[in-house]
Amino acid sequence: MGTHHTAASTGKRAAMPDNPPGDIPGEEFRRYGHEIVDWIAEYLQHPEDYPVLSQVTPGEIARALPDGPPADPEPLSDVLADFERVIMPGITHWNHPGFMAYFGVTGSAPGILGELLAAALNVNGMLWRTSPAASELEAVSLDWLRQLLGLPPSFEGIIYDTASISTLVAVAAAREATGLPYREQGSAGLPPLSLYCSEHAHSSVEKGAITLGIGQQGVRAIPVDEAFRMDVGVLREAIDKDRAAGRLPFCVVATAGTTSTTSVDPIPAIAEVAAENNLWLHVDAAYGGAAAILPEKRWILEGAERADSLVMNPHKWLFTPIDLSAFFSPRLDTVHAAFSLVPEYLRTGDGEVRNYMDYGPQLGRRFRALKLWFVLRAFGADGLRSRIRDHIRLAGDFAAWVDAAPDWERLAPVPLSVVCFRAAPARMNEEALNALNQRILDRVNQAGRVFLSHTRLRGMLTLRVAIGNIRSDRAYVRLAWEELVAALAAELSVPV
Amino acid sequence: MGTHHTAASTGKRAAMPDNPPGDIPGEEFRRYGHEIVDWIAEYLQHPEDYPVLSQVTPGEIARALPDGPPADPEPLSDVLADFERVIMPGITHWNHPGFMAYFGVTGSAPGILGELLAAALNVNGMLWRTSPAASELEAVSLDWLRQLLGLPPSFEGIIYDTASISTLVAVAAAREATGLPYREQGSAGLPPLSLYCSEHAHSSVEKGAITLGIGQQGVRAIPVDEAFRMDVGVLREAIDKDRAAGRLPFCVVATAGTTSTTSVDPIPAIAEVAAENNLWLHVDAAYGGAAAILPEKRWILEGAERADSLVMNPHKWLFTPIDLSAFFSPRLDTVHAAFSLVPEYLRTGDGEVRNYMDYGPQLGRRFRALKLWFVLRAFGADGLRSRIRDHIRLAGDFAAWVDAAPDWERLAPVPLSVVCFRAAPARMNEEALNALNQRILDRVNQAGRVFLSHTRLRGMLTLRVAIGNIRSDRAYVRLAWEELVAALAAELSVPV
Repeated sequence: MGTHHTAASTGKRAAMPDNPPGDIPGEEFRRYGHEIVDWIAEYLQHPEDYPVLSQVTPGEIARALPDGPPADPEPLSDVLADFERVIMPGITHWNHPGFMAYFGVTGSAPGILGELLAAALNVNGMLWRTSPAASELEAVSLDWLRQLLGLPPSFEGIIYDTASISTLVAVAAAREATGLPYREQGSAGLPPLSLYCSEHAHSSVEKGAITLGIGQQGVRAIPVDEAFRMDVGVLREAIDKDRAAGRLPFCVVATAGTTSTTSVDPIPAIAEVAAENNLWLHVDAAYGGAAAILPEKRWILEGAERADSLVMNPHKWLFTPIDLSAFFSPRLDTVHAAFSLVPEYLRTGDGEVRNYMDYGPQLGRRFRALKLWFVLRAFGADGLRSRIRDHIRLAGDFAAWVDAAPDWERLAPVPLSVVCFRAAPARMNEEALNALNQRILDRVNQAGRVFLSHTRLRGMLTLRVAIGNIRSDRAYVRLAWEELVAALAAELSVPV
Repeated sequence: MGTHHTAASTGKRAAMPDNPPGDIPGEEFRRYGHEIVDWIAEYLQHPEDYPVLSQVTPGEIARALPDGPPADPEPLSDVLADFERVIMPGITHWNHPGFMAYFGVTGSAPGILGELLAAALNVNGMLWRTSPAASELEAVSLDWLRQLLGLPPSFEGIIYDTASISTLVAVAAAREATGLPYREQGSAGLPPLSLYCSEHAHSSVEKGAITLGIGQQGVRAIPVDEAFRMDVGVLREAIDKDRAAGRLPFCVVATAGTTSTTSVDPIPAIAEVAAENNLWLHVDAAYGGAAAILPEKRWILEGAERADSLVMNPHKWLFTPIDLSAFFSPRLDTVHAAFSLVPEYLRTGDGEVRNYMDYGPQLGRRFRALKLWFVLRAFGADGLRSRIRDHIRLAGDFAAWVDAAPDWERLAPVPLSVVCFRAAPARMNEEALNALNQRILDRVNQAGRVFLSHTRLRGMLTLRVAIGNIRSDRAYVRLAWEELVAALAAELSVPV
């Protein structure tokens, strides 16, 4: 990077000191910045030097900190020392190759550096003019991502913080698309709305309905088939029944990669139902969407070209530091109609530019596109594909070990990179199996080498191995399996 | 900072390569990290080397970027070169000492370094166990902030991304506090809700009501007095009228530091009305709250001890990089009741810990507390007070120049650090004055040395000078005044 002094010359300028009053001097920023970069480089090379799941007890971190803020400035060296001494033991290491809980996700070095620059620039991209590059790089980087996902050019992108907000925006746009004056009147006096998703849809769908004033009773959780995919026949029936009862069906959420099992709803059939019933189709591909950049996995978004909106989170399985949720829609005009509200103090004469503040509940907007652009360029499309392909292969390996082991059983298909399974030694009833698997999970997690989480499938306590970490590696996936096998052996040797 | 190798030893571990596959090697992270730190150090010393308001035209940045992502990895040196060549000209420099638009806000060096560490750790603090330090430092750093603001210990804190979300959460909690089943049923069949705020309240209040399904018609914009403060008599009347009409008054938002003029609503009187009418009182101190850390400005939060919730944004006037909005409430149980929804896959056996995902619309949560803790410690309470006191003094200086100039007039009191004013040469009607001030604004902004924004007060196009930037400085405030005076002179010498 060059020096700044050639960057601009705007004539008259006030003479400024080198360092803002009260802030740390530039030379200290350099020194501590280098020290932190070196520390991070080392940390990122071996996060496995730490236990993956923090071993502290509740309140331990808080008790180690002073009761109140200091009156006088403290040297940054003290702050960094406390960071290592007090904060680090309380970190659960999402970067650890043994992190296979929830969705095992990480950032990456280019993403971290992009975030550093964004924090330094500290622009608020609420309006085009408050940083044109933030708005335009958002459009460009999401269009690159759209191409990787194989979505039509009519799909335009917006970045939100989380998939929860992306889905909330989708449902709000669906409400606006009814043409009824919910925005002006609220729900009072208008038909109660009904929203459909599978019983395996993410909790953010129901939370969005609560937040938007649609209510939990407006959410129909449609049963799933044997592979945990929405039953489209039941969906049709539910819509008819709601309409007969005077409710207004307005939106259906299909999931490409559910949270428990990564099942993929039959989007083409759901799109057909949506079209017949004039429902807004939102596709939740927050986790699974990343796999669609592989030709052999593109099928998971089949039918999504008919969607009204889709969410895919680069901060999940595309090595971008949280938070960055990518929302795509061919109907951004409806999103705009749902949310735009421009007070006088935010009016500009900039004409036909896109002011992203008009497209969601939040006014302030970090320059999130920068880190995504860094990641897309530093990895390249093929680099990203290699990582995701590796993860899917590792999940297949793990599934094969489970399938081959007599005391274990797999509980769901593995379309992506998550394996659902449990220990199932002979002669135990379901209640005993649930208790056994909970103890296995606790035993493995307490050891601190791998971190797994669970779900519940058809009443069965189900263990999950979720691969998606940039450090995911055959040795650690194997270690997870060995720990599980050892935990089962230990449990079976102990009287319960 | 020390080395990592003493940090932990957890026994059996898989052998790992030094660099994750596909990511840039550690030595490159170090090299580019140092380069970026040096670049930032220089940038932060002299952001005034750039024009404050980006001079690009719409589409210029997007056109300078490739149409699609690269297939192969690109060297980070190329990405950084493009960052300087393509992105930087499209940046509006919020760090520039001439940025006095909207609220002139900046981060600071300690905040940037805290953000860098948070991006590297990349934890998702949705649950206590997914990083206990993220949850506990959030509680501790917000308690420090609470003490600085002089709020009672019963006020517990939560961090959201933006004040828009903090206010949305407050209104949702207010709805929950009615005791009626809005969460379950939605608004259908329940009384229409009425929310009160001043006509100068931030647009996020109305946007929150739209989002929550309360509707724009559920928002009563109460007129203001001559100093732009809510008229509490009219508030009382509006509540009575709504109740008589069958609506349910449920929430009032008082603002401590409105966006146009930084007026401060009479919170004690509003609190009294809220108590009499069983309304949830939310105080929006997103910008103004920072001033309450000064003993001589603590009056702006007088009465806030009776509030049910309060928002104050450290990313506005407390030198913390965006985004970080601090929400305080003595009734977090009600916030929990409004939002908690725990699917099986997020259940833990952690007992009495606070899982922040239960307190808002978003599941994913960045480790935002870290940067706030860095700022509070590196500045110290007195360091922060000095900066804010300086800003208020500079605003007073600017107001005095306006007051002393015959061709200018001040249009609002200056309780904090924003001055509202206009050019008002004799013998011009209101229409001509509005046009003149718009031209003055455009002329000043196009010159690129300072950036101002506007509002409209009683129909008058009003110029604003907003001081709050860590680089705010008498020389630049003076420069803004000189530019305005020169722009007026230029306008008056041109036939219009």
